[in-house]
Amino acid sequence: MTPIVQCVPNLSEGRDLAKIHAITEPLKDQPGFKLISLEPDQDYHRTVITLIGDPMAMQKPLLAFFKKAAELIDMNTHQGEHPRMGAVDVVPFIPIQGITIEDCIDHAETLAKTVAETLDIPVYLYADAAKEPSRTRLPAIRKGEFEGMKDKIKTSDWKPDFGPAAIHPTFGVVAIGARIPLLAYNIDLATDDMKIAKAIARAIRQSTGGFQYVQAGPAFLEDKGHVQVTMNILDFKKNPVYRIFETVKMEAARYQVDVTASEVVGLFPKAALTDSLKYYHGVTGQPFDKDMTLDDVVDASIRYLKLRDFDRLKIIEANLS
Amino acid sequence: MTPIVQCVPNLSEGRDLAKIHAITEPLKDQPGFKLISLEPDQDYHRTVITLIGDPMAMQKPLLAFFKKAAELIDMNTHQGEHPRMGAVDVVPFIPIQGITIEDCIDHAETLAKTVAETLDIPVYLYADAAKEPSRTRLPAIRKGEFEGMKDKIKTSDWKPDFGPAAIHPTFGVVAIGARIPLLAYNIDLATDDMKIAKAIARAIRQSTGGFQYVQAGPAFLEDKGHVQVTMNILDFKKNPVYRIFETVKMEAARYQVDVTASEVVGLFPKAALTDSLKYYHGVTGQPFDKDMTLDDVVDASIRYLKLRDFDRLKIIEANLS
Repeated sequence: MTPIVQCVPNLSEGRDLAKIHAITEPLKDQPGFKLISLEPDQDYHRTVITLIGDPMAMQKPLLAFFKKAAELIDMNTHQGEHPRMGAVDVVPFIPIQGITIEDCIDHAETLAKTVAETLDIPVYLYADAAKEPSRTRLPAIRKGEFEGMKDKIKTSDWKPDFGPAAIHPTFGVVAIGARIPLLAYNIDLATDDMKIAKAIARAIRQSTGGFQYVQAGPAFLEDKGHVQVTMNILDFKKNPVYRIFETVKMEAARYQVDVTASEVVGLFPKAALTDSLKYYHGVTGQPFDKDMTLDDVVDASIRYLKLRDFDRLKIIEANLS
Repeated sequence: MTPIVQCVPNLSEGRDLAKIHAITEPLKDQPGFKLISLEPDQDYHRTVITLIGDPMAMQKPLLAFFKKAAELIDMNTHQGEHPRMGAVDVVPFIPIQGITIEDCIDHAETLAKTVAETLDIPVYLYADAAKEPSRTRLPAIRKGEFEGMKDKIKTSDWKPDFGPAAIHPTFGVVAIGARIPLLAYNIDLATDDMKIAKAIARAIRQSTGGFQYVQAGPAFLEDKGHVQVTMNILDFKKNPVYRIFETVKMEAARYQVDVTASEVVGLFPKAALTDSLKYYHGVTGQPFDKDMTLDDVVDASIRYLKLRDFDRLKIIEANLS
């Protein structure tokens, strides 16, 4: 079986669509992997790119993509709401099927070495590929951003893992690494009161005492007129979706507020949904079939987790064939 | 207002009641504080002692108690199920009323200094009184227990904060410190299946991804014939009792198992209960009176948290007057 990864390069250009297409051209219509989506964000001035397929087949096209980004982006004039340190800011390899996290670390190191040697771009290995605990968390590496990296990279603590100990003058620096799949997930509340979304986010997230692998905050959806709890679930095996969804319902009940829907951002692995469906089947006393079809997974997930704007293409496995 | 602390010395004798009474004699009928309870455990070979009152008034009686323990206990012949490193194993000072955690640290240091100087017993400062992060957690200090401390105490990492760098030949060593109130709390499940209690404990405890301030494990109650999830809640402001109780109910539902009761071990501060009653009043839409009487707190806590074997004397504040 060909190993399958999800690779999600983040590009520091979210406004000029012509430029985004020129830079991502080398990633299109390649053998061995698919460009699943390009999600430009104007406010963030950043585009999230999703590739799925054989990580070996991605190596050369990714190098060509880095080369284009180095030619067309000048970080000295880049301003956006999302923190960033390089024209390509971060590239994670995520194991999906027939591949271990250790293999993904190898692919990250291969790409890191080639990018540094070919383009003279400094590279930090991050997440599970980090060589030191202080480089595990991306925000720690990125602190100071493009502007601050000029001096930071010269300190002994922040010597890059590959490439020169000086930023590329227009590209900056990049983090390349490997990590298990992360879920981006939002839960809608039938209220416009941000205080309630904030209090619930505080109850569930790690930084204020909640679940270990949950990062969460409040958000107001201007077009919809209600708030949501927006979150990343860093390990859905340990903090399954149903547990977060049910805990948010439990907390919302004290404000007499309904949970009206929830939302998958990007892609979920099938297991993140079936793990939760198994819970609801247990509660309702139905037998659970772990080999249920993707269409059944979609139907049951919409029913139990009240997913909105959801279809099978939001499940990674639906994009593999 | 006189400052009030709870002080909970743990004594490494849980079987010989005459000996326990002789050692705790100096703590009885003293001005300024009360000996609230002595809880000997035969299997653990350990007695948990609870004092409440003015920490200044406790200093001299505690020294006399240490002296008696050093005379009457020989750790070389002590064996029990609970890990231990000294005849008096640990003494925490816990702020209750009109006193800060910083003041409690001062009282811990005063006792530590006197015990070391008067009785030649090595003392480690722990929890919030620890001078180094590696000494915050009691299990880290106690690792190796009485037998292992003979060598461990001679290493530079484990030089005691007060007293000689050699164990007292019969007493061993002691940890003295300060911490915020910890809740010992158990939740009963209507099943004898330990696998279910274990799975639920894993869902809620910090070490396997659950709530940050919860330590939990499974237990089988032989006399009652059912299992429970037994836990410590290290910070009830951040991980309130209702949230743990409701999460355990949510998890038990997948096994079609009822939560039949819950149990307070030792004492709870009133706020640990009122914080949770506020939640239930929100859910049911009743107004919440934060100055409700202790009797009302008891009634409502029994109703919502299904507390068993509970009465007002299990609330710290009921023991203050």
